[in-house]
Amino acid sequence: MINPFFKNTGPYKINFLLKHINLKIDNLPDDKITDIKDLNSSEKSEITFLHSKKYTDLAKKTKASYCLTSENFQSFLPDSCNAIITDKVLLHTAQITKIFYPDSITDDYDNTVKDINETEFKGKVNFGKNILIGDNVKIGKNCSIGHNSIIEKNVNIGDNCSIGSNVIIRNSLIKNNVHILDACVIGKKGFGFFPNKDSNFRYPQIGIVIIEDNVEIGCGSTIDRGSLSNTIIGKNTYLDNQIHIAHNVKIGENCIIAGQVGFAGSSTLGNNVMIGGQAGISGHLKIGNNVQIGGGSGVIKNIPDNSKVMGYPAKDLKNFIRENK
Amino acid sequence: MINPFFKNTGPYKINFLLKHINLKIDNLPDDKITDIKDLNSSEKSEITFLHSKKYTDLAKKTKASYCLTSENFQSFLPDSCNAIITDKVLLHTAQITKIFYPDSITDDYDNTVKDINETEFKGKVNFGKNILIGDNVKIGKNCSIGHNSIIEKNVNIGDNCSIGSNVIIRNSLIKNNVHILDACVIGKKGFGFFPNKDSNFRYPQIGIVIIEDNVEIGCGSTIDRGSLSNTIIGKNTYLDNQIHIAHNVKIGENCIIAGQVGFAGSSTLGNNVMIGGQAGISGHLKIGNNVQIGGGSGVIKNIPDNSKVMGYPAKDLKNFIRENK
Amino acid sequence: MINPFFKNTGPYKINFLLKHINLKIDNLPDDKITDIKDLNSSEKSEITFLHSKKYTDLAKKTKASYCLTSENFQSFLPDSCNAIITDKVLLHTAQITKIFYPDSITDDYDNTVKDINETEFKGKVNFGKNILIGDNVKIGKNCSIGHNSIIEKNVNIGDNCSIGSNVIIRNSLIKNNVHILDACVIGKKGFGFFPNKDSNFRYPQIGIVIIEDNVEIGCGSTIDRGSLSNTIIGKNTYLDNQIHIAHNVKIGENCIIAGQVGFAGSSTLGNNVMIGGQAGISGHLKIGNNVQIGGGSGVIKNIPDNSKVMGYPAKDLKNFIRENK
Repeated sequence: MINPFFKNTGPYKINFLLKHINLKIDNLPDDKITDIKDLNSSEKSEITFLHSKKYTDLAKKTKASYCLTSENFQSFLPDSCNAIITDKVLLHTAQITKIFYPDSITDDYDNTVKDINETEFKGKVNFGKNILIGDNVKIGKNCSIGHNSIIEKNVNIGDNCSIGSNVIIRNSLIKNNVHILDACVIGKKGFGFFPNKDSNFRYPQIGIVIIEDNVEIGCGSTIDRGSLSNTIIGKNTYLDNQIHIAHNVKIGENCIIAGQVGFAGSSTLGNNVMIGGQAGISGHLKIGNNVQIGGGSGVIKNIPDNSKVMGYPAKDLKNFIRENK
Repeated sequence: MINPFFKNTGPYKINFLLKHINLKIDNLPDDKITDIKDLNSSEKSEITFLHSKKYTDLAKKTKASYCLTSENFQSFLPDSCNAIITDKVLLHTAQITKIFYPDSITDDYDNTVKDINETEFKGKVNFGKNILIGDNVKIGKNCSIGHNSIIEKNVNIGDNCSIGSNVIIRNSLIKNNVHILDACVIGKKGFGFFPNKDSNFRYPQIGIVIIEDNVEIGCGSTIDRGSLSNTIIGKNTYLDNQIHIAHNVKIGENCIIAGQVGFAGSSTLGNNVMIGGQAGISGHLKIGNNVQIGGGSGVIKNIPDNSKVMGYPAKDLKNFIRENK
Repeated sequence: MINPFFKNTGPYKINFLLKHINLKIDNLPDDKITDIKDLNSSEKSEITFLHSKKYTDLAKKTKASYCLTSENFQSFLPDSCNAIITDKVLLHTAQITKIFYPDSITDDYDNTVKDINETEFKGKVNFGKNILIGDNVKIGKNCSIGHNSIIEKNVNIGDNCSIGSNVIIRNSLIKNNVHILDACVIGKKGFGFFPNKDSNFRYPQIGIVIIEDNVEIGCGSTIDRGSLSNTIIGKNTYLDNQIHIAHNVKIGENCIIAGQVGFAGSSTLGNNVMIGGQAGISGHLKIGNNVQIGGGSGVIKNIPDNSKVMGYPAKDLKNFIRENK
């Protein structure tokens, strides 16, 4: 899939890219590099990265022509892939991604927006006052958009959706029958950067937000877009007010998530998960199907299917009840 | 009181209503039903519901002509009330409520709003730019409304109120000397629905928000309206920023509630209650008068008058301190 | 520094001020009082206050001509300073501050704002639609302001700043390279008042918000201005979404604060502090340099430099891990 939201400014010659990150490697052919992707999705003439042994199996099959990696991982790359050795794999990956996708670093306002009355949607969509719509937005049949809302360029909204007032949506694909209530911010860049004294280096955020059919998002919630993968809210999942979903989080189908719950980045939820109010889910966790998480819990490790947990840190619900009698 | 916010589309014949919920009961007279209410407030020619033994005493005195209930509760109804037996009392109550009040299911924007300059309030209210006011709004003397705020139809605001910027108010009665700070969303539908694979069924939310005299609501707070009863904030209660109050919550007078506190649905607070930042109050609880709840606490059971509690789950403050020495 | 945000309506005669707070002191010369400040910064002809023995050393050196204080502290004042004895030092300080700075009590909208197209910034700043700018705002080079944002009077924004959409900024000094993402409310009055049955007395909030170079503030965050001192976010500190910072909080440089964290008033953070999501910091605490606070923690006491803590209440991280094995 071509990402409709972030324009690839490439191709770039490999030596141009390396010069920008202050790496010098002798005897490289000056190939054109067309894109940067993860190990799995990259193709010939693209550059990828390998920074953890978790991904060595994927590395063996990558089709990328170049790979940023450290000395100890280079042996996992196929012959068709030239290793670029560095001790700062992720920082250099971010810097090269920034060269390809400079717009993904900061989230300045969309300067293509027009008042909806000046667009094709006049007469086709039910809409309130002062609504701004960016270039190339698509909105399906029978949708409603509240006052002062902003739909930025290239956003795609399906049929029968209800968007509240004071909502901001960017970099997102919204399927059918989705309700997004007032004052939500959907598709903002994630909280990702390399700490650096006096001036952090922002990590490019070129993923998007995908909201599947029949989802409801409560007032004042924020859903950040993915960095290199996407943030996904599964079918018929309902979120209450003031929820925060960080970048790359993937939530399954038929989940029920109460008010003020927060997700750190890159966690995955199964289907039919219920989460009580104010619970927090740490980053990079895997929560199974049919899991129930009590209100106020702090989840800091993976949870298998069909578990009920509560507490801070979250533990088996029966233990939590027994310990707190 | 006639609810000014949700138009009753009835009356409907009882057989029409039953057909819509796929119930068939022989030999019913085809009476007109004028409204659906709880056991206590319903009148002759109205339909009510009884789903829990907690309410059997109220059931004995109901004036409703019909009552959705299960087989084991029907004996509590007076002779004047016809039992409609179902094993899905709440779902069928919701479905019939939706027939009477279709606008209470979704919260599409108010399409009656006009720029405040085109309304009677020009010259009578102090107001900023880009303010939208719905039909039949009432605003008292000496009020101030900030930029970009939206006051939807039928909202009633008393004297000497200050409404911030980017505020959205709907389905609410605001008394006198109330301050609502920036970016609040007041009166949105509550988070109520029957879970249903692939497509949940939303519960009608026909209650309102009542904010009594001298209340202050901090920035970015959300107060949901009631489902069948109302959400109430008592006199001279002050709420800090980013607070979430779910549907049907009733907060007493002179309470002080710090930032990021969250309330699940239908809990009741007494007067003079103090709650520290980020505390959470579970649903359907009764918190007494003069209670103090420490910051970060998770309250999961009723709290008697004059108690001081802290912890997760919240316990007597002295115990919390002793255990954490 | 003259506070550019709150107009001093003085000078007032001392007997006029005392009459307003129902204090009568015989034989006072009817001096003009030009301002009210803390012990340290007040000058001749100004009034100050002393309510705690923590400040007796400062009291000895105050240059103020008058000081509100209680009987037991009056001996700490120099001869040049007349003690005004009261048993309600803070309430009377607030009441006199309100006389000098009546605009600091409530936060009505700024009625000086104009559409940015009618201002000097047209052609000089990159900006979206429907932006409102108050009198005497300063904006540096190469800034970007998103749709529907409001910059109230006297706000000062440096160079290379990016302000999102639906943002409200008042009473703030924003330095260079600062990014404030969508839907933030910066500079609102703090949550400060004297509880009083039926009608609380609001404490004047005449401090400001200072945001240093290279800071990022995530979506939907609220940063309240100081009451008598300022709220400060240090250089290169990054805040995630939905964070609440109460009045007078001072955050150091290079801090990283994850989503939904909350700070109660007047706490101080050192440099290089990392705080996980949903943690809460109580009021009036001192958190040292290089401290790491785990997600969901509740910090209720001071934390020395270089500590790692987690838990509710927060304790040494190693203890938290051991106890939760």
